[in-house]
Amino acid sequence: MINEISGRELKSASLAQLNEYCNELRNEIIETVSKCGGHLSSNLGAVELTVALHRVFDFPKDKLIFDVGHQCYTHKLLSGRAKVFHTLRKRGGLSGFPKHSESEYDCYDTGHAGTSISAAIGFAKARDLKGEDYSVIALVGDGSFNNGLIYEALNSIKILDSRILIILNDNGMSISPTVGGMHDILGKIKEAPTGAEVFEHFGLTYRGVVNGNDLGALLPALEEAKELLKRGSVLLHVVTKKGQGYPFSECAPLLTHGVSPSAPKREYCSALGEELCALAETHPGIVAVTAAMTDNLGLRPFFEKFPDRAFDVGICEEHASVLCASLAAGGMKPYYAIYSTFLERAFDEIIHDICAQNLPVTLCIDRAGVSGADGETHQGVFDLSYLSFIPNLTVAIPKDIGEFRSMLRLSADCPSPLAIRYPREGTEGEISDIEIGKFEVLHSTLSDIVLLAAGERCLNIAWEVRERALREGFDVGIVNARFLRPLDEELLRSLPHRYVFTIEDNALIGGLGDGVTRFYRRVGSSKQVKCFGYEDRFLPHGEPRELMELFGLSAEAIYKEVRAAHEGR
Amino acid sequence: MINEISGRELKSASLAQLNEYCNELRNEIIETVSKCGGHLSSNLGAVELTVALHRVFDFPKDKLIFDVGHQCYTHKLLSGRAKVFHTLRKRGGLSGFPKHSESEYDCYDTGHAGTSISAAIGFAKARDLKGEDYSVIALVGDGSFNNGLIYEALNSIKILDSRILIILNDNGMSISPTVGGMHDILGKIKEAPTGAEVFEHFGLTYRGVVNGNDLGALLPALEEAKELLKRGSVLLHVVTKKGQGYPFSECAPLLTHGVSPSAPKREYCSALGEELCALAETHPGIVAVTAAMTDNLGLRPFFEKFPDRAFDVGICEEHASVLCASLAAGGMKPYYAIYSTFLERAFDEIIHDICAQNLPVTLCIDRAGVSGADGETHQGVFDLSYLSFIPNLTVAIPKDIGEFRSMLRLSADCPSPLAIRYPREGTEGEISDIEIGKFEVLHSTLSDIVLLAAGERCLNIAWEVRERALREGFDVGIVNARFLRPLDEELLRSLPHRYVFTIEDNALIGGLGDGVTRFYRRVGSSKQVKCFGYEDRFLPHGEPRELMELFGLSAEAIYKEVRAAHEGR
Repeated sequence: MINEISGRELKSASLAQLNEYCNELRNEIIETVSKCGGHLSSNLGAVELTVALHRVFDFPKDKLIFDVGHQCYTHKLLSGRAKVFHTLRKRGGLSGFPKHSESEYDCYDTGHAGTSISAAIGFAKARDLKGEDYSVIALVGDGSFNNGLIYEALNSIKILDSRILIILNDNGMSISPTVGGMHDILGKIKEAPTGAEVFEHFGLTYRGVVNGNDLGALLPALEEAKELLKRGSVLLHVVTKKGQGYPFSECAPLLTHGVSPSAPKREYCSALGEELCALAETHPGIVAVTAAMTDNLGLRPFFEKFPDRAFDVGICEEHASVLCASLAAGGMKPYYAIYSTFLERAFDEIIHDICAQNLPVTLCIDRAGVSGADGETHQGVFDLSYLSFIPNLTVAIPKDIGEFRSMLRLSADCPSPLAIRYPREGTEGEISDIEIGKFEVLHSTLSDIVLLAAGERCLNIAWEVRERALREGFDVGIVNARFLRPLDEELLRSLPHRYVFTIEDNALIGGLGDGVTRFYRRVGSSKQVKCFGYEDRFLPHGEPRELMELFGLSAEAIYKEVRAAHEGR
Repeated sequence: MINEISGRELKSASLAQLNEYCNELRNEIIETVSKCGGHLSSNLGAVELTVALHRVFDFPKDKLIFDVGHQCYTHKLLSGRAKVFHTLRKRGGLSGFPKHSESEYDCYDTGHAGTSISAAIGFAKARDLKGEDYSVIALVGDGSFNNGLIYEALNSIKILDSRILIILNDNGMSISPTVGGMHDILGKIKEAPTGAEVFEHFGLTYRGVVNGNDLGALLPALEEAKELLKRGSVLLHVVTKKGQGYPFSECAPLLTHGVSPSAPKREYCSALGEELCALAETHPGIVAVTAAMTDNLGLRPFFEKFPDRAFDVGICEEHASVLCASLAAGGMKPYYAIYSTFLERAFDEIIHDICAQNLPVTLCIDRAGVSGADGETHQGVFDLSYLSFIPNLTVAIPKDIGEFRSMLRLSADCPSPLAIRYPREGTEGEISDIEIGKFEVLHSTLSDIVLLAAGERCLNIAWEVRERALREGFDVGIVNARFLRPLDEELLRSLPHRYVFTIEDNALIGGLGDGVTRFYRRVGSSKQVKCFGYEDRFLPHGEPRELMELFGLSAEAIYKEVRAAHEGR
């Protein structure tokens, strides 16, 4: 374990000592991430920058806001959390992202891209209104600089007359390589900093380009920025090397962006890439869109095979949605692959552009349900809720990777918007013919009880509940509730069971359970419906299985209710 | 009524004839808007520009996409809809926004700001992939140019290698005067067009500044742009005068942005301004935030009285949310006033920034429920659904303006996120003490039936239903269901009635009815719950009352069910 260093030591250390300390930090991060998983290359790139910030500024009095937040490991190690750093991303341990509940050094929680400059402005205004005196710093990567929220914030710096320091950590990568017009501007500036005039229009004094892996250059640059900050807002342009100091990571920053502690099982995203490639052969209208997540979503094969029909627009979830809508309006068949939690950013566009116009866009929603070690800001437990009420939209939940493939094949000729949501990992399965809005009875029984489960994880729980029931001498039916919209009303109507249990890997409010309950209410049924999903709270980080059990989806707890129903209690 | 002009006539007319025709169009728009309501000044400003576009391009083969879409009246008059223009914004008549279902000349529906450039890129890509040949034009106001979605799209023009024509209609106004860094850039360019280099970085050939109310200047500029468009993307910077040709509108474009056909009743937004001003005297932490809607939301008095504590960030709904979250994290008490439909744009930030951090931001959600004449893209019928499942959030629905005032007073010391949703118009009412999560029994009765209604409109319906019941000799209870989150479980548990009816001015899926049903399901109650709200479809334009009756909230239809329940059927 790394030695805890005090703020005082950091402030008085020599440059050589600081460099030595950066090496120790780097080793600690590599060691911990190899055990706990996490973001490796972005953290390795930001070691010197974070050390320099802690040297020059006074945290937690001064406020440091990390955009996205995945590059905060050095900050955690420097703010009293070295002793518990080995608990990183484990249930009950340190979060992989800034968490105010964890330390006062984390003044603002992040996880999604683009919020840091807005947040810095808010702190700066609050400071000025309260007559306080501290510096506010937004540390933002060039990948986030494509995001609309960043632009909205930049645009309002003058309006709000706030003094903030923006550190642009330019490593030329978001998760995939950074792309776009702003990237070109930054490139030009790197060649000739006089081109930085555009930032002056936004009320920023520009300084750069500084080598962000060189403390000797960084420290004076930060000192100067701190001085400038007394008079107005500053943009300090720093270039760092993602994965600095770790040969494997330097060579392949993409592969080490997020590191899993163990080898993954079969992933849904691989099937997405395979199926889209196959379908695209016979469907010339098919195009694929991603917001800087080509690899994580399995789209690499499609991008290689159909480069003209594959679009990575950078971290721009909203633009990607409107692009899909208009591609569809123009006669194409777009597939928009995205993580469940990031799709929240495109909520308005799903309603306003895709569904209100009833355009045939397919949303491929990965990392749905609890997603695990990344915690609150990355759980995909709201999508069934926020998609449940959008007119014209079909919402499908495959029971395994085979059924996911079948749904993708079905989607190719679907004339209206379709969302398919799935977790990261799963098992293969059969290809089958699927009809929109039709559930599948997996186990039929004359007992009083039927379990309607959505998706592989929940069906696994359902089978486990049935095992327990069989051991105690009774049986339960199991239905694959593979569509949230439309529900299979015919099947719901015909179920002979008195007790209907729903199980979903989603918040309990607004999902499948509420839909089934609504149906039975509407038809005046006397069935008893019992619903299982997640509690009404934000779910912290931990192993998916662990989180499921803790927050609402434990086979044991569900079985208890099943048995009570069986006994007529 | 204006004479319908054919495309051929328009293409062969002399400049003098075109100018004469612009006068006729302008008169037609003024006359119709004065009868039907609608957007006056933005449409008057865009008459020449639209005529010139129709002269130079070939619609519907070429594609014209209006940002926001409220400036499309001339386009409608020029594309075969002059004869029905008098039906503008009336139920069953022409929409005030582009509607593909209305005309093939409207290739893409809009309503919210910032989508046009993304949409243009999508059409251009579809065109190229399909080997078609047409021009794609995005017509966007400078107000939208602050929006993050615009920036995301600009940023991807190079990536996507698309050829589009962006016409920047610069009138220096969004709804309130345009503000921000981009505004400054545009101002600099107007002084010296050489400053337009920033657009070149984004892959755009810049041309301008052209007087957009002068056909003599516009026509050659558009011809040139059309030529340039063969080789790449073009930004044509046009300056128009909002309200051009209508003295009253030219002087006061703000007042004529949206025009109502008759004088409004009492508005909730006035109470917001009054209460916030009063509260701010005793609560130094209170600040107000708006996204370019100061007047429409009633915030003008606050902006005048507390200029340092009032922030208009332009059409940046997301940035406004994060700004509120961080102002709260910095110790302030922010109020974010916004229309229900536009808050959809900030959905992710409500979850990720405000509620996940449990920050004491108050969302003042105006135009909730059906909002009427603006149609599909402006109805506020999803907010109860999309707020229902967000942890840490309280959601309140006042029964009248007095109760709204009471809730605002309550909010001032509320330590967690609070949303208050209300329609535009209402009646005053008493100030009272309100406890979070407590319903109010308005009429108690021993009958079998109780109506739980949320908000003034629905309570009015409930009283009307009771009137009908009384006339037929029975009574029903009435409860003011003023909190969606948390529900008043104690009251729900204690209701003696066998039939519980819920009435809400929101989509039926995911709102109050589902919440009440969920509660009774959870406690295993045998109550019969019947729910009334809007059907699962997008609601077109029309008078609010008319739409309510047509799509789910008719006192007559509800009474029918009430009587059936009373009769035990």
